[in-house]
Amino acid sequence: MNKKLCLGAFMRPISLHTAWWRHPNAAPQANFDFPIIKDLVRKLEDACFDAVFLADHLAVMNMPTNALKRSGTITSFEPLTLLSALAACTTNIGLIATGTTSYEEPYLTARRFASLDHLSSGRAGWNIVTTVNTEAAYNFGLESARLHAERYERAGEFFKVVTGLWDGWADDALLMDKESGIFFDPEKIKPLNHKGKYFSVKGPLNIARPVQGWPVIALAGASDAARQMAAESADLVFGNARTIETARSFYKDVKTRAIAAGRNPDHLKILPANQVYVAATREEAYRKKQVMDDLVHVDSNLPNLSLKLGVDVSGFDLDKPLPDIPETEQSKGHQREWIALAQREGLTVRELAKRAAGSGIGEMIGTPSEVADQMEEWLLTEACDGFMMVFHSAPDGYDDFTSMVVPELQRRGLFRTRYEGGTLRDTIGLPRPDSRVD
Amino acid sequence: MNKKLCLGAFMRPISLHTAWWRHPNAAPQANFDFPIIKDLVRKLEDACFDAVFLADHLAVMNMPTNALKRSGTITSFEPLTLLSALAACTTNIGLIATGTTSYEEPYLTARRFASLDHLSSGRAGWNIVTTVNTEAAYNFGLESARLHAERYERAGEFFKVVTGLWDGWADDALLMDKESGIFFDPEKIKPLNHKGKYFSVKGPLNIARPVQGWPVIALAGASDAARQMAAESADLVFGNARTIETARSFYKDVKTRAIAAGRNPDHLKILPANQVYVAATREEAYRKKQVMDDLVHVDSNLPNLSLKLGVDVSGFDLDKPLPDIPETEQSKGHQREWIALAQREGLTVRELAKRAAGSGIGEMIGTPSEVADQMEEWLLTEACDGFMMVFHSAPDGYDDFTSMVVPELQRRGLFRTRYEGGTLRDTIGLPRPDSRVD
Repeated sequence: MNKKLCLGAFMRPISLHTAWWRHPNAAPQANFDFPIIKDLVRKLEDACFDAVFLADHLAVMNMPTNALKRSGTITSFEPLTLLSALAACTTNIGLIATGTTSYEEPYLTARRFASLDHLSSGRAGWNIVTTVNTEAAYNFGLESARLHAERYERAGEFFKVVTGLWDGWADDALLMDKESGIFFDPEKIKPLNHKGKYFSVKGPLNIARPVQGWPVIALAGASDAARQMAAESADLVFGNARTIETARSFYKDVKTRAIAAGRNPDHLKILPANQVYVAATREEAYRKKQVMDDLVHVDSNLPNLSLKLGVDVSGFDLDKPLPDIPETEQSKGHQREWIALAQREGLTVRELAKRAAGSGIGEMIGTPSEVADQMEEWLLTEACDGFMMVFHSAPDGYDDFTSMVVPELQRRGLFRTRYEGGTLRDTIGLPRPDSRVD
Repeated sequence: MNKKLCLGAFMRPISLHTAWWRHPNAAPQANFDFPIIKDLVRKLEDACFDAVFLADHLAVMNMPTNALKRSGTITSFEPLTLLSALAACTTNIGLIATGTTSYEEPYLTARRFASLDHLSSGRAGWNIVTTVNTEAAYNFGLESARLHAERYERAGEFFKVVTGLWDGWADDALLMDKESGIFFDPEKIKPLNHKGKYFSVKGPLNIARPVQGWPVIALAGASDAARQMAAESADLVFGNARTIETARSFYKDVKTRAIAAGRNPDHLKILPANQVYVAATREEAYRKKQVMDDLVHVDSNLPNLSLKLGVDVSGFDLDKPLPDIPETEQSKGHQREWIALAQREGLTVRELAKRAAGSGIGEMIGTPSEVADQMEEWLLTEACDGFMMVFHSAPDGYDDFTSMVVPELQRRGLFRTRYEGGTLRDTIGLPRPDSRVD
């Protein structure tokens, strides 16, 4: 059987392009309008996407007012409530929500994702993040974000508690025997009795084991700690490579770590972000990109770059190369990626800021055939197992990709033409973890 | 215009009757089966109910295994995920979820209820509880539940933070002006900058002000602190009166407190719990009750009573009157109610335990006309503004009430025959709070 692409759709925010909502065809409220989001998700389900994915943040983003007021994503639905509503309107597509380990309680996180998994008949996924944003810390009683090492240590314990709670129920705990009046077998539900550095959680969970055993586990992040945690624990890894070379290097590193951790590397799917501009001709595809980028207001450029780098660049000399960036507690992934880009292409700060003005992620541009060629090359040369698609606008970005690129991928046998049924783990080709209670 | 009933439907658990799932017609999985729950909610919407209501708990209930294993509600959906899914399948009915102030973060609670309110076009409600259960405390790193006074002090500050976050956005903050590229007016979104005893929250919230301004605020609880908080802050008050006299006394007390707090007492609706057995003849209605109560296993009686009283009754002399119950940190409502019942009717512990074996709440039994007579009397003599209906089984309890009692109430002009449209506040007749940002 041919190797096939795994395709996720990045939907929160509805687009990462700074100017998405200004596109002539865009519904500017698309990020916060349930009927519009529902229609887009159904379109993705018709195109047989593996899953939709919702990023998250826990504050109004900390950028200067001049840039912030241009953001079409200042208001967003909370991910688990939105995915639960979408679960009721869809049948096959996976539903992956970001959940932080920094400001939630593991008992509540285990419970909510289990609930989404049952509501969707086994289509839930949990993207684990450690929240670094300082503005978020202020919303949870802290003076600053936790340090990088502490965030990852806490995340590791959080994950252990959550999965332990899911595994505290046997899959066959419920008897529901009207005759005897016995609803469940008490031997099949065990407390966790976890006592650790950050959490003390007795259990058991007040909801049955998820349909999938565990919802699909996703992770992003480029730091050493994040790669290691992904290699040991994740089913899906989101990357942010902008070139096939960096993608291959990341792919090899994470898969090697997975093997060293005793895992089957095929059970860990690596999906770099990818924003596609596609049209009948290459020239038209580039014109589409130009239309979008021309809609970005100059006030958005420097703050966007500051966000990517985790430092305020407004004092930098715009016409000189990027100065040395101090190591900060910012997520390492973006920072590393943007410093590398500036060095690789010898960009000034002003030029680099302009690159940050769109979505700042990897792009493929061309005809359906040209885009499919690139995706095929990435897949077959071990740069990825698929992509996390990011759409440049709504609905155009969604329509273009599903109507032009997906059929071409399907024609080449690189992507499914229908769902086989079953859970999200079944769709992606992931094993179902066993319970720790027989 | 006639005074009309406000009707809520208690749906989590799907029934409070210990034996609900053993009824011959019951689907024993009804409490944990989304398609079944969806059908029941649509039935309630067809009957023009104001809202469905989900109680909650944060642990597998602490009762002896012999009783627990007979519980048809050991596994349940998490309330906000379930209501979000239901929001996508309904149009008019209100969606009220319980949310604790003891183990959640106010920023996250404010955000989730705002999200549900937007997803449902203004049909969300928040039932505020302080969690007392000791088993729940063990799931959140505590050695015991917090003390009663501390729980209410914390709840008060929690409520202040949540409503302050909702009010930090003007209703017209979003501009979405494609031409200028300005998405929102930064003057219309203000930080909260709350620093209190329990919480420090900067804000603003990362979601627009709820459609209803504030989701409908509900409260239960019979203690002095709970009544006062309800009188000052609630739109809906859930009571647990088993007789019309105690209902009137509670009604008068809470409405008097509301007036003293400067509120219009009509803007606070008091809904006692009510479980109805209805049939074409009174004898048949009583037979229905008998069928249900006969299905309760004796092992469930004493643990049920222990839960109601907040003390372990297994050592009590079963054939003597109830001894003095020590003041505990248990919720005061149930405890007070059950002590009063034992005293009023001179019951032994054994007899009292048998009463706890069904649902242990107020009941009305008879023909549709007899039940409507009682409901009308309660409404017109200021014992209530409506009822929180609790169904003895699923689907029979739901079918009986919607097909027999609702039409009779509608014939008498005591209940709406169609929704007028609009938000849950509009449906119930509650004002919309103003934002604190112009």
